[in-house]
Amino acid sequence: MERMIENGQGILSPALLLEGWQGHRRLTRRVIEAFPEKEFFEFSIGGMRPFADMVKELLAIAEPGLKELVSGEKQEFDEKREYGNKKSELLAHWDAATEGINALWEKLPAEKFPETAILFGAYEFPVLWHIFYFIDNEIHHRGQGYVYLRALGIEPPLFYER
Amino acid sequence: MERMIENGQGILSPALLLEGWQGHRRLTRRVIEAFPEKEFFEFSIGGMRPFADMVKELLAIAEPGLKELVSGEKQEFDEKREYGNKKSELLAHWDAATEGINALWEKLPAEKFPETAILFGAYEFPVLWHIFYFIDNEIHHRGQGYVYLRALGIEPPLFYER
Repeated sequence: MERMIENGQGILSPALLLEGWQGHRRLTRRVIEAFPEKEFFEFSIGGMRPFADMVKELLAIAEPGLKELVSGEKQEFDEKREYGNKKSELLAHWDAATEGINALWEKLPAEKFPETAILFGAYEFPVLWHIFYFIDNEIHHRGQGYVYLRALGIEPPLFYER
Repeated sequence: MERMIENGQGILSPALLLEGWQGHRRLTRRVIEAFPEKEFFEFSIGGMRPFADMVKELLAIAEPGLKELVSGEKQEFDEKREYGNKKSELLAHWDAATEGINALWEKLPAEKFPETAILFGAYEFPVLWHIFYFIDNEIHHRGQGYVYLRALGIEPPLFYER
């Protein structure tokens, strides 16, 4: 962000952004829950990854990414981390990340959001843009999870319920 | 938004939000372009709508919705509008909406974003939440379009290119 936020032009606070993000994460959690155990890890369309692998990507980004943005310490982007082979184990990691994100957020003051930061040692953008990317990427893959569920004959959670 | 943005807590301006939104709309445009003519209007998975119908929903929301938020005049939510039967015709409407959104945005000052507004005579939220919803809903359906493209054996545009 070359431009800083001019006085009176601020329309979003860190607290509201966190609220929006965690609302999306609650919906993604319900999408995970909607998958049958086996299909969560195995079902795929058009050569794409199973939804479990997309969720592992989301877990690899959210808490580790935020940790790097907060601390400046380079984190490894690792979407192959082992979370166990059960949906319940991934959900437990999901919930731990929810708490982790909330705790890290306390260390991210408003003035940091327009500052440029390097993520996973590679991507350089303003902190706000990184966090929008985390959220957008989650919505993107969750939308793909909706197609998997529909293809499996399963009604997905309502998109607007957070 | 019960809370207003406290001094110094503003991390996003209307100009940056528009930039982000139009960046997403440019990517969605490339996804439309990536579809073969026939499959754009007909291909479907799991009983879902063809991507053309999702795009008609996006067109029904973006410019008319923003018009209602700006003017306060109730707009009809109509995702069955006729845009012609060719991809090129829908793309022309997409581009007209791009200009329309930019023009309406000029009439939406920062102080309006935390205010509650009714959309399509039905949904009551702060203006900022409505606009995030427009964007999130677009990302969600575009992600579904990516699955359609993959199922058709077509490489979708890069997600991070805007």
